Amino acid sequence: MNVQYIQSTQNKKFKEWRKLLKRRGREKAGFYLIEGPHLVEEALKDPDVVQELLLNGDQDVVFELYDDIAVYQLETDLFKELSTTENPQGMIAVCKMKSIEAPKEVKRVLLLDAVQDPGNLGTLIRTADAAGLDAVYLGDGCVDQYNEKTLRSAQGSHFHLPVIRLNLFEAIVQLKAQAIPIYGTSLTGTELSSDLRQSRFGLLVGNEANGVHPDLLDQTDFSIKIPIYGQAESLNVAVAAGILMYYLRGL
Amino acid sequence: MNVQYIQSTQNKKFKEWRKLLKRRGREKAGFYLIEGPHLVEEALKDPDVVQELLLNGDQDVVFELYDDIAVYQLETDLFKELSTTENPQGMIAVCKMKSIEAPKEVKRVLLLDAVQDPGNLGTLIRTADAAGLDAVYLGDGCVDQYNEKTLRSAQGSHFHLPVIRLNLFEAIVQLKAQAIPIYGTSLTGTELSSDLRQSRFGLLVGNEANGVHPDLLDQTDFSIKIPIYGQAESLNVAVAAGILMYYLRGL
Repeated sequence: MNVQYIQSTQNKKFKEWRKLLKRRGREKAGFYLIEGPHLVEEALKDPDVVQELLLNGDQDVVFELYDDIAVYQLETDLFKELSTTENPQGMIAVCKMKSIEAPKEVKRVLLLDAVQDPGNLGTLIRTADAAGLDAVYLGDGCVDQYNEKTLRSAQGSHFHLPVIRLNLFEAIVQLKAQAIPIYGTSLTGTELSSDLRQSRFGLLVGNEANGVHPDLLDQTDFSIKIPIYGQAESLNVAVAAGILMYYLRGL
Repeated sequence: MNVQYIQSTQNKKFKEWRKLLKRRGREKAGFYLIEGPHLVEEALKDPDVVQELLLNGDQDVVFELYDDIAVYQLETDLFKELSTTENPQGMIAVCKMKSIEAPKEVKRVLLLDAVQDPGNLGTLIRTADAAGLDAVYLGDGCVDQYNEKTLRSAQGSHFHLPVIRLNLFEAIVQLKAQAIPIYGTSLTGTELSSDLRQSRFGLLVGNEANGVHPDLLDQTDFSIKIPIYGQAESLNVAVAAGILMYYLRGL
């Protein structure tokens, strides 16, 4: 393994990596950072994702790397500048954003309208993966899917199913053309009942404070809500989507 | 309304409040802080909770206060030192911890073993409230329920149902004495089936990385798991508990 040492903040590579800490830098470069052995191992399952591996000092690499992945050892101070965890786990991978088109045929999709909390977005992607959905569609106003908190709470699930930024109005038209019923959540929706269960569905959930935008909700086939038996006003969006994805597919 | 102005970090009251930012300080004093008009309004529903109200500068108080609540206006710099949000919402209440005993009779309870993420704990409390549970029991190793992130994600639900720190082994014995079946989550548990549904239950979920401790799991009546249809290894603990609380009670 050919390893290069980087000790200076003036290093050209280091300056490039640092730009990936911001959304704009990521989008301009087409790369993003993931941290920790668990995520890196997930990323390595696809030979085209990891471009470079950055190590904190003389950290060991415990798994096999593809030959074309460049490996760098960074001084701890430099590594910490790129790390976004409190206790850096010693390993950061520079990953390539893959351009993914919306799958032509889907059975079950999660549509997200303006989900703004990075942790919520990651948990939604992880839950959609667990519930066996085919894709997650991100509409306008959703937080960046490559935000470090999103990637951390997604726990690698963004490698398992397509997460695609698109126009939700257009997506709904296309899903309807495939005769896939669209369910939108609304605090004034219909309570769940077993006849709502479907082998195919699009589930639309919305912003943490405002829910699904009314114009989008107008495009859905069903407006539904989870019953609230206590005094809480609502559920966290990732919890609500988790309950509904499993419910709709027939748990 | 009698308002006192506080301008100095040397003020005795201010020094007391600052101690409430840490768990140890909260436990010693028996008080904790909540922030923002929404939480403060929730807290005011119980006349014994809010002791003092702290305002950022000349912020208006838009709701009625009990006569015995002392109100303080703080210089913005001082207010910010007590605030734990990025955009301080101008209002912090000093609340009294209420000593709550475990209810003698319960129908549905959530038991948490070593849940360590403050946001997860808050979301679990909020979800238990929404799902109409009677109490949340916190076992050893759970993060502080008065952590600011926990209170924020609980969105006031800790005012709606008892959240009690106790020994989970003893709690399970007491629940069993009431013939309440205990369900524990485990990645090797039985998949859910409709005959598991019960009007009364104790649901036990565990630590983010390690799940429920095996010794505790041994005490449960059923070890269950949510089916994973995709490639995710597991679900977020708050999402899993949300799915199960609604499932078990018969959604």
